[in-house]
Amino acid sequence: MKLFAVPDLPEFESGDSIPDLVAERVDLRPDDVVCVASTVVSKVEDRVADLSSFPAGPRAREVAARLERATGEKKDPRFAQAVLEESTDLLMEAPFLLTETRFGHVTVNAGIDRSNVPGGDLLLLPRRPDESAARIEAGVDADRVIVTDTCGRPFRHGQRGVAIGWAGTPAARDWRGERDRDGRELGVTVQAVVDELAAAANLVAGEGDGGTPAVVVRDFDFGDHDGSDALFRDVEGDFVRQALRGWSFDDG
Amino acid sequence: MKLFAVPDLPEFESGDSIPDLVAERVDLRPDDVVCVASTVVSKVEDRVADLSSFPAGPRAREVAARLERATGEKKDPRFAQAVLEESTDLLMEAPFLLTETRFGHVTVNAGIDRSNVPGGDLLLLPRRPDESAARIEAGVDADRVIVTDTCGRPFRHGQRGVAIGWAGTPAARDWRGERDRDGRELGVTVQAVVDELAAAANLVAGEGDGGTPAVVVRDFDFGDHDGSDALFRDVEGDFVRQALRGWSFDDG
Repeated sequence: MKLFAVPDLPEFESGDSIPDLVAERVDLRPDDVVCVASTVVSKVEDRVADLSSFPAGPRAREVAARLERATGEKKDPRFAQAVLEESTDLLMEAPFLLTETRFGHVTVNAGIDRSNVPGGDLLLLPRRPDESAARIEAGVDADRVIVTDTCGRPFRHGQRGVAIGWAGTPAARDWRGERDRDGRELGVTVQAVVDELAAAANLVAGEGDGGTPAVVVRDFDFGDHDGSDALFRDVEGDFVRQALRGWSFDDG
Repeated sequence: MKLFAVPDLPEFESGDSIPDLVAERVDLRPDDVVCVASTVVSKVEDRVADLSSFPAGPRAREVAARLERATGEKKDPRFAQAVLEESTDLLMEAPFLLTETRFGHVTVNAGIDRSNVPGGDLLLLPRRPDESAARIEAGVDADRVIVTDTCGRPFRHGQRGVAIGWAGTPAARDWRGERDRDGRELGVTVQAVVDELAAAANLVAGEGDGGTPAVVVRDFDFGDHDGSDALFRDVEGDFVRQALRGWSFDDG
């Protein structure tokens, strides 16, 4: 398996064609996996926004005030408003906002980026990353596309790449019922392949002025296995999420 | 960046030399990263055990009884005893045992494998995976070694590869203070590189009778960045872990 960055990509702007910009730079093969950072998907899909377009309502003002108490830092209620509008659930209110995005991804601040936004204050995540991935996939010679994000996680420090949308591939590889070389049934059953591909791509993508938002994974063999597209857990089976409902940050 | 499985590895046994078995099959280069599955590290380090060597004490009997009520399945209190002995904290008691291993990794059942154990009932995780990685690194021409595991996570279905021990590389790449091509400070600060390498390796390793426990990552460039070895969060900054303390599974 090989990974390489798509070279010399320009800064992406609203309306740019990601398939064209990639195809001009790489001879893609059908079994390539093209991994595209959500930031550039958002830029071409015009998901740049200004704080002024999110006038804060009562709930956002409450959330921002709670965050100020918890962190001792000034918080803009318009940013809280943007997070609430982009979210379908709020898992933690302090000391940061842990949210469910409209498409089921659990991440801080609904994945809104404030640090890397030409032409605006905020970069929102794509509305429907699966649809974004499908549109890119329809325009390139590669049959598999993943829209990636980076986010933190419980228990372990640091961010790692994850998939938020995918097309042409199942999200996971299901080993259930298969056996090891001694005939014992396998312990690991479902492998989150798109997340592992996103993590691998993130190693090559880098960040900052040397960073590149599109990475090709070549010669990844999914193999002859069942696939599954359920990547985001139901609340019913997510005990961590249930536990967070009964928990509240102690302001001290 | 390229990844390839070390070909034709035999079944590993107690006392085998992982460095020798790898070096006989691959011409390693200094900047290669060798990723080795914890299962084979455990086998060569004689971490196979029988349930009979874990006579259940009062706490294990309590834990097993609670699991039986929660799941409706028969549970062996000796297995609970093994999990407790291998753990330094119990984050969830039902409907499964979520534990902190002695080296800080949070995983189910202290990572004890019951499904793939020739010569015993249980395969325990390596006692000190960092030391295991350092021993392997000292015996191969590659300068970087990662001991990998697979485990599930909150919010998302499926297992993915993670690092539990590493040598010759920092755990994470720190982008703090660096800037993007437009001079804006970077949003992502700490990238859990060893976890991303473990995830990438897991894509190539596979499972079952076609699985291979050692994968080489070639031409991964850490770059000129600060590094950090703090991979496992302190409880103080881990709000999910704090939330789990106040939560209890409802037996219904």
